[in-house]
Amino acid sequence: MTMTQANVLDHLPPLFIGIDGGGSKCKAKLVSNDAKFVGVGISGRANPVHGMETTLESIVDSAKKALADASLPEAALDHVIAGVGLAGVNLPSLFEQVNNWSHPFKAMYLTTDLHIACLGAHAWQDGSVIISGTGSCGLSMVQGKTKMYGAHGFPLGDQGSGAWLGWKAIVAALLASDDLGPSTTLTERICDYLGARPRGIADAMANQPPKEFAKLASIVFAEAKSGDAVALSIIEEGVSYLNNMARKILTENPGRLALLGGLRSEITPWLADDVKAALSDPIHAPEDGAIHFAKSESANANKKAG
Amino acid sequence: MTMTQANVLDHLPPLFIGIDGGGSKCKAKLVSNDAKFVGVGISGRANPVHGMETTLESIVDSAKKALADASLPEAALDHVIAGVGLAGVNLPSLFEQVNNWSHPFKAMYLTTDLHIACLGAHAWQDGSVIISGTGSCGLSMVQGKTKMYGAHGFPLGDQGSGAWLGWKAIVAALLASDDLGPSTTLTERICDYLGARPRGIADAMANQPPKEFAKLASIVFAEAKSGDAVALSIIEEGVSYLNNMARKILTENPGRLALLGGLRSEITPWLADDVKAALSDPIHAPEDGAIHFAKSESANANKKAG
Repeated sequence: MTMTQANVLDHLPPLFIGIDGGGSKCKAKLVSNDAKFVGVGISGRANPVHGMETTLESIVDSAKKALADASLPEAALDHVIAGVGLAGVNLPSLFEQVNNWSHPFKAMYLTTDLHIACLGAHAWQDGSVIISGTGSCGLSMVQGKTKMYGAHGFPLGDQGSGAWLGWKAIVAALLASDDLGPSTTLTERICDYLGARPRGIADAMANQPPKEFAKLASIVFAEAKSGDAVALSIIEEGVSYLNNMARKILTENPGRLALLGGLRSEITPWLADDVKAALSDPIHAPEDGAIHFAKSESANANKKAG
Repeated sequence: MTMTQANVLDHLPPLFIGIDGGGSKCKAKLVSNDAKFVGVGISGRANPVHGMETTLESIVDSAKKALADASLPEAALDHVIAGVGLAGVNLPSLFEQVNNWSHPFKAMYLTTDLHIACLGAHAWQDGSVIISGTGSCGLSMVQGKTKMYGAHGFPLGDQGSGAWLGWKAIVAALLASDDLGPSTTLTERICDYLGARPRGIADAMANQPPKEFAKLASIVFAEAKSGDAVALSIIEEGVSYLNNMARKILTENPGRLALLGGLRSEITPWLADDVKAALSDPIHAPEDGAIHFAKSESANANKKAG
């Protein structure tokens, strides 16, 4: 028997989507209450600090892709209860803007990317996370109380993140181009990568989003491994910030601390021994944390409404 | 006898405008060849790195104000030969954009703000300048050859500039807010100034133009004078960059070195003794340099055409 689209929509079990949006990409994971439907969708960057329109587009686009991946029609979007964790919404004005958006979901519950990452990493139990990806930040959850570190956005904060490491490499390359700082293999490679000899670097990188700076981080790691003095000093400064944040978080006795984000494997070997020893592996992914958040917030809302 | 506007325009002597555009303001100075007409006009920021449209508007607006100040009608704009010195146009793509603009002048000759500042400071003779204003940069002119330092734009460069000092203060305030850096009078005052207790700072300053960061520089200077450790370390780092640039420029034997820009009087006492001893006072203003540039370039163009 072939059901029409209307039939499908009429007989859907409750659908939850968890969305993890950051400076480089937006990932959505869909599950139905009966686990019959599962799908994932990945879209472009979703950090409202660097563009509200792009962010909202990426959220909807990733959700549509997750529906398609689960063989569900796009029209199922308004049956979906979404849990959305976004970079940048620790800023009150941005939280308001996203939260007041006339979204296409049945319901949307908004929180930070950090919060959903922490929920996922510790299977919704107490714990803490440090994220080093395009940006950097930390969060502890102890007995229902959360405390946030960093998450100030590049170039005001985000020390030890991909964007920050790439930006420091650009600054060093520009100093070298003026003969006001050391010229090393790193500064040479940055010029080569950008296809721009010194005077063109600022032109190539002016007003670029953090994501573009973060692309240079792998060059910094590669050169640090080869002993490049400038690369080493950049990584040492960034790692010192992450070490300090980890030690600060650990004073709150969160039980577990997980390091997450795109730089996780690259940066872990550079951390201080005491910090490395304190790290636990994450249990679930941030988008699973976002699904849990959607479920518990909608249960709370139903309880209130009932 | 009252002349009609058409009469005025018919009998105008050659008019030259020198325009000095930067991250905080755009200044225009008008002179007629016979020195009968003189006027100045000041408009908003004009750094194409941070907005092409605003820049072009500021240029035209400042020129119109200079005409009005000289009691000339706006219609005289297309009688004017403009020399325009702009921040940011050391970036080739921005130079092209401004240079290809369908401007309202009879002719426009474009160069960097640094170049006109150097021409003015040394009365069109060999010499060198360091500018510390909203941004920072340096230029030497030795036997017709120019060499530029810095001018990479915030946040890629501009060390020791107003925007850079203000930005460092914000970074320090955010570190203090996370208890990951020292909390001092400076970090307190930054919060007060922004009317935003720590968590709101990033919100208040995200995506602000350099000019807004530069407004905080005076707080950094004031606190450094009172011995604030964070303010002192920020100023020391910025001044170290300017000292290095000055020493580098002096190796080229430019004859004279002038320090210019909005931070001139504030930052001079902090410079190293050898650098202070090497400084000369500027002879003319940057807009005078721009007028000289307009005259010499149009004379060259006439020579070629003839």
